[in-house]
Formats: sequence, C-alpha cells, structure tokens
Amino acid sequence: MFQLMKVIPNLKKMSALKNCVREQSVMTQKLMYKEYGEPIKVLSKQCEELNDNVKPNEVLVRMLAAPINPADINTIEGKYPSKPTLPAVGGGEGVAEIIDVGSEVRNLAVGDRIVPLKPGLGTWRTHASLPHNLVYKIPKDLGLVEAATLTVNPCTAYRMLRDFVTLKPGDCVIQNGANSACGQYVIQISRIWGLRTVNIIRDRDNVHELKRFLSALGGTHILTENELRKTNLFKTGECPFPKLGFNCVGGQSALEVMRNLAPGGTMVTFGGMSKEPVTIPTSALIFKDIKAVGFWMTRWTQEHFESEDRSEMLEELITMMTKGEIHGPAVQIIDFSEYQQALSLTGGGGKLEKKIILGFENC
Amino acid sequence: MFQLMKVIPNLKKMSALKNCVREQSVMTQKLMYKEYGEPIKVLSKQCEELNDNVKPNEVLVRMLAAPINPADINTIEGKYPSKPTLPAVGGGEGVAEIIDVGSEVRNLAVGDRIVPLKPGLGTWRTHASLPHNLVYKIPKDLGLVEAATLTVNPCTAYRMLRDFVTLKPGDCVIQNGANSACGQYVIQISRIWGLRTVNIIRDRDNVHELKRFLSALGGTHILTENELRKTNLFKTGECPFPKLGFNCVGGQSALEVMRNLAPGGTMVTFGGMSKEPVTIPTSALIFKDIKAVGFWMTRWTQEHFESEDRSEMLEELITMMTKGEIHGPAVQIIDFSEYQQALSLTGGGGKLEKKIILGFENC
Repeated sequence: MFQLMKVIPNLKKMSALKNCVREQSVMTQKLMYKEYGEPIKVLSKQCEELNDNVKPNEVLVRMLAAPINPADINTIEGKYPSKPTLPAVGGGEGVAEIIDVGSEVRNLAVGDRIVPLKPGLGTWRTHASLPHNLVYKIPKDLGLVEAATLTVNPCTAYRMLRDFVTLKPGDCVIQNGANSACGQYVIQISRIWGLRTVNIIRDRDNVHELKRFLSALGGTHILTENELRKTNLFKTGECPFPKLGFNCVGGQSALEVMRNLAPGGTMVTFGGMSKEPVTIPTSALIFKDIKAVGFWMTRWTQEHFESEDRSEMLEELITMMTKGEIHGPAVQIIDFSEYQQALSLTGGGGKLEKKIILGFENC
Repeated sequence: MFQLMKVIPNLKKMSALKNCVREQSVMTQKLMYKEYGEPIKVLSKQCEELNDNVKPNEVLVRMLAAPINPADINTIEGKYPSKPTLPAVGGGEGVAEIIDVGSEVRNLAVGDRIVPLKPGLGTWRTHASLPHNLVYKIPKDLGLVEAATLTVNPCTAYRMLRDFVTLKPGDCVIQNGANSACGQYVIQISRIWGLRTVNIIRDRDNVHELKRFLSALGGTHILTENELRKTNLFKTGECPFPKLGFNCVGGQSALEVMRNLAPGGTMVTFGGMSKEPVTIPTSALIFKDIKAVGFWMTRWTQEHFESEDRSEMLEELITMMTKGEIHGPAVQIIDFSEYQQALSLTGGGGKLEKKIILGFENC
C-alpha cells in the first residue's frame, strides 16, 4: 500500500506535466514585463507555483488560446491609456478551460470554457486563478478562434452598429479599413441585421481576391479609396447615403468616410492605423451636421461591466458564431513557447493579414 | 371742400415721403442681387411700389434696423448653403414696425414691433409685406440693437449652452473667439445660469481693455491663447475641466479648446474664422471620448419653426434683455442710404470689433 500511495501521485504528476497541473498545485508560465518598452525586449517568461488551494470565490483556469492584439503591444510599450501596475502579465483576451473551482463558486464547473470579462487580466500565461465574476462561460462548441477573440473585435463592431445611430434594414454603413478584424465583423453583423455596407480598402496587389473575400462575408459594396472618389453609388441612388461611418485609419481616409455620409451622419473613430489625426472641414460640422465621436471597447466594458446589455450582446454574438453565421478573422496560431516569433510577426503596424494567436496546446 | 380734399392727400403724400408711405401704397427701396458675387458689386438699390392693399394674412412693416451678418455676405457671394432664388433681397435679420395689417391677422396691430421668424426673408429694404406667421412680436422697450440682432447670436449662444451637454450651476464652458458677438452672449447667459466660462481671445494691443470688458460681462476667466497653454487653472482644481466647448475659429485654436475639455466632453463648432479645419487627435476621440459636433442656427430654426422651445427661448432672451441683464454687442449704425460704406466695413473676415447695422430712420 505504501508503495502504491507513492506511485499514484507520481503518475498524476507525470500526466499533469503535460498541462502543467500537479496534484494540488499548478506551475504557471507567464509572459511578464517589469518596465514599459518594446515587447520583445521587456517580456520574459516566468514560472510561478500557484497557491495549493483555489480561493473560495475563484476559478483555476488553463489557457487554451490568447491573441496578440495591437492594444496588448501598446500597453506593454506604455503607450496605451490603460497602464497596469508593474510587474504585469501581457495579454488581455483569450479563452480558457476551468480546471478547478473554489468552494463558493456556483454556475461554473471543471471543464467549462470561459473568456475574461475584464480587460487587462493578463492572458499570456498557461494558468491563472481568476475571481469567478471576472469570467464568462461560453459554450464548448464555440470555435477556438472566435472564443479567443470574442470580447474585443466582434463586440466593437456590434456596439458601433448599435449605439450611435438608429438604423433600420436597408440603411447603409460606410467603413474604412474594411478588411480589419473588426471591419470583417461589421460586414457580417450588418448582413445579418439587413444593413448595407460600403467597404473601403486600400489598393493592393491582390485587391480582387480581397474584394471576393469581403463580398463572400456579405459586404454590399467593396471599393478601393480611388474607386470611392469616383463612384456614383450614392448619387444615382443605387445605395442610400450612409448615416453611420466607421474610421480606423484617420487622415485622408477618414475624410473620405465623412464626405460620403448623409447630412446629420455620425463617424465613429475606433482606430488610427495611418497615425494621422481626423480632420473635419468646418462646413461639414456646421452645415452638414456631421458628428465625429470615438469608441473604445475598454471604456464601454468598464461602464457596462455587469449590465444586461453586455450579456445580451455576448449571447447574441455567440449564437451567430455557433450557428456559423459569422466567423473570426484569419489567424495564425503560434505555440506559446514560440512567443518571441509570434511577437516579431505583429510589428507591422496593422498591415498584418492574419491575427496572431498564442496556442497553449503543448503547455 | 373740393380744394381741401385735394390738399389733404397731398399733405399726406408729402408727410409719407419721409417714411416711404403713400396714401394707399408704399414705395419700398430694397437691396437686391440678381447674381452671386461680391456684395458691393452685385447689390443695387431698387424701388418698388407695393400692392395697394395688404393681403388678408400679411402685415406691412417698415424696417427700423437690420444687421449685416457674415452669413448675409456669404449668401450673396453664393458661398452659403442657403441659396435663395434669384433675384433676391439681401439680409436675414432685423427689427421692423407694423404699419398696416391684413384683415385676417389677429394679435398683431399697427405700431407693434416684430422680428422675422424665418431666415432669408430679405431685411435690407425699407418696407416689406410679410406673412403674419413669419414675424414675431417683441416688446417696444426692447433695445433697437438687441431687437435687430435677436434671432441669430443670442439664440445660438442659448441653444449651444442648452442642447449638447446637461450642465448644472458651477460647471464650466470653454470657448474661443470669446469676444465675438455670440461669445459675448455665451458669457452673459452663462453668468445668469451660474456657469463658469473660460474665454480664449487672441493676443492683441488692447488685450487688457478687452479682458476688462469681457470680465465686466461676467466672464469667469479670460485668457489669451498663450496664457491658456501655460495655465494651471484646471490642474489645480481652481476651475473644473469644461464638459462643453465652443469653437468659432478652427485650427490650432479648436485644438486648444479640445485639449482642455473633460473626458467625454463635447466641442460644438459654429464658426471657422481662421478658415482652418478642425483637427482631432485619434486618441482624443477614442480614449478621451471627445465629441466634435456642429451647430447652425438656421437649421435649428427650420427644425423648430413653430415649436414651444423656440418661443420659450425668445421670451427668456427678451426678458434678460429688457431687464438689462444681457446686452447686444458694440455696433455701428449706418444709414441705409450709405449701404455701400456699410458693406465696405464688413470685409474684414470676422476681425471687425463692431457689428454693422443698417438704420432706416431717414427712409
């Protein structure tokens, strides 16, 4: 018996090494930074043994996938308004599986999949103990990519389509950077809600391929910036003037979005890929009644943390995703152990065709 | 008797020449333009005999005073979005006295003073027949300048303070071009409503004199653009960050207004004296939630033509004026016969210290 007792824990330990779980404690690996700077320089992988017991109100989770978002990079660089207390763990989004639950946690069980409800929890780690009220249970049949990127891009598209202008089926929305991860969700959600989209993309070598792809997602009109300048789409009445525009580029591209808005229209800025500001002619503000506003998912989340609006949105998006009506963007999954390579691929300033996702399958 | 009968009309006619009224008809002089262009070139004075009888639903008025507003100039130049059918009479604002009323007109009587309720009626004329529902009766003790300029500047200030952000006493509003006609009303109405104002002016020779003047109107803080850049007013908490800003300049000056707004604040653009557009940093839109909108009194008037909001506003402003709580801007009254001189004084592109008003006393 004595020998058997010794053997069983060892077996457990060996099996647990695969997913970093030991009998009663967990060894987590995390990408931490002690100072702001270039991620590849300031991030280092650290190991830490988590507490033996999960706290009553917490869940112990094993990460499955976590994207590298531009906001994650900017946060580590110290260029983002959200400044975590240092040292901090990188990453804000991801999907995880519960491997243990605290004694007071209800409605969550081992094996459930969750996404973090709060930005900045630090998802670039193999395991984490998280307060149960900061995680949101998702169905297991939700795709890994959609789950790992649920809380930022599709939510941004959803809210921007909902919160600024009251639209009815047949109305039109115009956006630049239409092939961005968020832009693709704008196209797909608009298609489901019966909204037309005018999608602006930069000219490029494979422009026809990209047009076909965005059309297949449901984009009504896909135009390069040059084509937009010459189009008769609105003048001929083929498409109504858009009441709502989305801008993630800035500069001249934002101006083209505004120029095509209906009188009284609103342009929502949620990114600035060109690094140029938004410039609005005085006459557009006064005589055309154009409104320029911004949207930041992080702020919305803070202001609606436990709101019904939020759970309604997440449920609606998850349903669209599990039904296969909307899809996440193209991604490249790179193993967590290769995080340096993953980071080196994300330095392109928004020109990356595929979103990089850290995978934890081998942890 | 026969002779007397002949004499009386002649006497009437002679006396009527003074105010252009003949026994049963009126000779009106009006400043008309047949094509768009430089006002001094395209405007010409024309005489016309008005119909012998006032129509049942009209009032016949004699103009008392009519300002030359920048919008009037731009309209004649064809640079304004409101394009009257040509030929047209210049001028949009003014005050007049009723000299005859149609048979079906109620609540208006000979001797009443009125202001036009609709922009673009053409106030640069000695007399006009106007539909009774397009004029608004004002008390006779309202000052001539305040009456002649009632429907644009004070209304713009009133609406901008009311319609964009909910303010409570102690809250702060920031504005550039604070010494403009509208800016002066913003200061005075804010004082009455218990709002603080941060007033930005351009540096100039007589800056101390201007500061004293705006302080006397009730401006809480008056700063040149340079002083604003260095001020600790907001950082020290001496003044709360403004939730609302007004911009009538554009360019760098608009940026300074935005830079000092509280998070979530709104900047309303209602003019563009610098002829530079409004440029907004992407981060201000996304992370600081700054909103850039525009206001155009003409649109508001069209959308609220017979609304209670409108009569409430006019009554409230008139009460403030007749009580002597708010005053019109400095003006220079120039006789209607000297209209060319008057026009030549208004070419300064907003740098004019005094508003030019056409006076009709000698017509």
